[in-house]
Amino acid sequence: MNFRARKTAASRAAKAAGADGLLVTHRPDLRYLCGFTGSNAALVLAGGKSVLFTDGRYTVQAKSEAAGTRVVIAKKPVMTAACEWIVEAGIQRCGFDAAVTTVATLEAMRKAVPAKVRRGLFLALESPVSRLRQVKDADEIRKMRAAAKLGCSLFDDMLGYLQPGLTEIDVASTLEHRARLAGAEAMSFPTIVASGERSALPHGHASMAKLPRRGFVTMDFGVVLDGYMSDMTRTIHLGKAQPEERDVYDAVLEAQEAGVAMVAPGVTAGEIDEAARSVLRRAGLDRWFTHSTGHGVGLEIHEGPRLAAKQTQKLEEGMVITVEPGVYMPGQFGIRIEDMVLVTSRGYEILTPSIKAWIEL
Amino acid sequence: MNFRARKTAASRAAKAAGADGLLVTHRPDLRYLCGFTGSNAALVLAGGKSVLFTDGRYTVQAKSEAAGTRVVIAKKPVMTAACEWIVEAGIQRCGFDAAVTTVATLEAMRKAVPAKVRRGLFLALESPVSRLRQVKDADEIRKMRAAAKLGCSLFDDMLGYLQPGLTEIDVASTLEHRARLAGAEAMSFPTIVASGERSALPHGHASMAKLPRRGFVTMDFGVVLDGYMSDMTRTIHLGKAQPEERDVYDAVLEAQEAGVAMVAPGVTAGEIDEAARSVLRRAGLDRWFTHSTGHGVGLEIHEGPRLAAKQTQKLEEGMVITVEPGVYMPGQFGIRIEDMVLVTSRGYEILTPSIKAWIEL
Repeated sequence: MNFRARKTAASRAAKAAGADGLLVTHRPDLRYLCGFTGSNAALVLAGGKSVLFTDGRYTVQAKSEAAGTRVVIAKKPVMTAACEWIVEAGIQRCGFDAAVTTVATLEAMRKAVPAKVRRGLFLALESPVSRLRQVKDADEIRKMRAAAKLGCSLFDDMLGYLQPGLTEIDVASTLEHRARLAGAEAMSFPTIVASGERSALPHGHASMAKLPRRGFVTMDFGVVLDGYMSDMTRTIHLGKAQPEERDVYDAVLEAQEAGVAMVAPGVTAGEIDEAARSVLRRAGLDRWFTHSTGHGVGLEIHEGPRLAAKQTQKLEEGMVITVEPGVYMPGQFGIRIEDMVLVTSRGYEILTPSIKAWIEL
Repeated sequence: MNFRARKTAASRAAKAAGADGLLVTHRPDLRYLCGFTGSNAALVLAGGKSVLFTDGRYTVQAKSEAAGTRVVIAKKPVMTAACEWIVEAGIQRCGFDAAVTTVATLEAMRKAVPAKVRRGLFLALESPVSRLRQVKDADEIRKMRAAAKLGCSLFDDMLGYLQPGLTEIDVASTLEHRARLAGAEAMSFPTIVASGERSALPHGHASMAKLPRRGFVTMDFGVVLDGYMSDMTRTIHLGKAQPEERDVYDAVLEAQEAGVAMVAPGVTAGEIDEAARSVLRRAGLDRWFTHSTGHGVGLEIHEGPRLAAKQTQKLEEGMVITVEPGVYMPGQFGIRIEDMVLVTSRGYEILTPSIKAWIEL
């Protein structure tokens, strides 16, 4: 693991924003920077030093997981201990992530330090660590590849299970059961199984509705392996389809492949969105494509970049994004196809190579 | 549902804190106050009026779920629309929950209103709605009873499944699979199955470890039904136990029952904790009881009150709390027993009546 390099990069980002120290409390950020996976912890980075504050429940775990980081088991609230250390260490401007720190927590941070240093000590930053996490290093890519691969094998496996009359919840919970038995730590999010008319709900949670004899089934799911999340969607058809269903499927697939084909370093997030959206526009289906085209994924299921209209952020080598256009026709049917895509030096690599061609079961 | 009464109570709480309006964005709070379950929404209460702002994805859902509340489908960011309305409505001091509002969100709120009204418009409050939610009304108690009952039936069912050699993950995911098939919307939290030496981990996630031929198995789990969460823990023994194992079990059970027996309106949270803890102290086991005795539960798995040493908050009729002492002897074994308990006018009612007597399978 590259904890040292990651901590150095985080300190550098804080410094560039005018901070000589950085207070980190968001759980995925802590895992990323020092390996610690417990709750209730605060990591302070300053002047090449790093100290992880946590509580007595994590004495053994913190020393083992955060081996390269000094661990302090705080007797007082973790945030108080961290803030006192920030003052003792002589930090003048300590950055924190405004996007994950509550107003109440900031108030507690201020109360934990003497009034004479309080003013200006804490500096609100815009997700300094989450931004770094958008670009995955080799170790992360290896883990994400493994998570994506498990997702694919589950989908392939479920093709043999799907049949009319099963409830969506049966399908979702069977998939989740198999995922756990195959080693998944958890699911990335509650599994979506939306069938028949319900496939027109972009985020239809699995319900007691039964899979139809004729109609679509959309499955959107992901597994967590070693902390990293996969995310993929496939839509298959049960029974013989109407020509229109097949046409819309082909258009969504073309849109998805157009979005993926555009992925490369330097391309903007908005251009990926437009590549997919314009295919659906030409097919007269864009009014039914009601969400954005994708998002980054990693230690969290939704990370940056956001692949939506007009987003000017440029893709960088090492980012892992989803490309997931969909068409949702209320009262009729819906289709979504989603891959996880790694941005490579020359273009892209699809991490979820399960079949996307039309499937009629 | 008592949405009107709940909204009135929330407005009254805000008023008592010096606010003539209240901005609510926390999802469980929104569900509680108006029934809306989607993400990305803001509810404003002021002068007997209530307006729910959300986005186009929720047009149908918001109008159906939040039937008694005016719904505005915002074209701009939901928070911007809500804040502009706050200004138009002439609210002078708008309360918000500092415990769930990030520093970045507060900044966005401030930017959404004209500079001349910005100063003093937003007033940080301490969980005004979560506090109300601690006391459940009849409708909530009915739902929590149903969730707790489903939890119990799953535990009873799993007694016929447990056997040496199964992995903890197999047990956890089988339980979760059965929960979903029985109608649970989701689990309240990732199911804990900790066996053998691992039972000494207070929150040991299910692992690939195999259930031992002789040793404890702790199962801590909950289901979500209609948004409300259950939470219960039982520890059973596989194979013939050592006398010491049985002795410790009896002490934990006595502690748990002593904690429960003390539950009544007017008793402090700290007194419940002490009732349980003192039993373990007399047995010389309190050094291994390393967490607090319990917590409130409802639309969230961890709510107030917190049942820990010296907590002075008094229990009130209608609160639903857990009572869950445990003993964890590293390298040996651990035992935890947990019930959900409703505070009644005269005392208490156990919502999770599954067997707590010693079980040797």
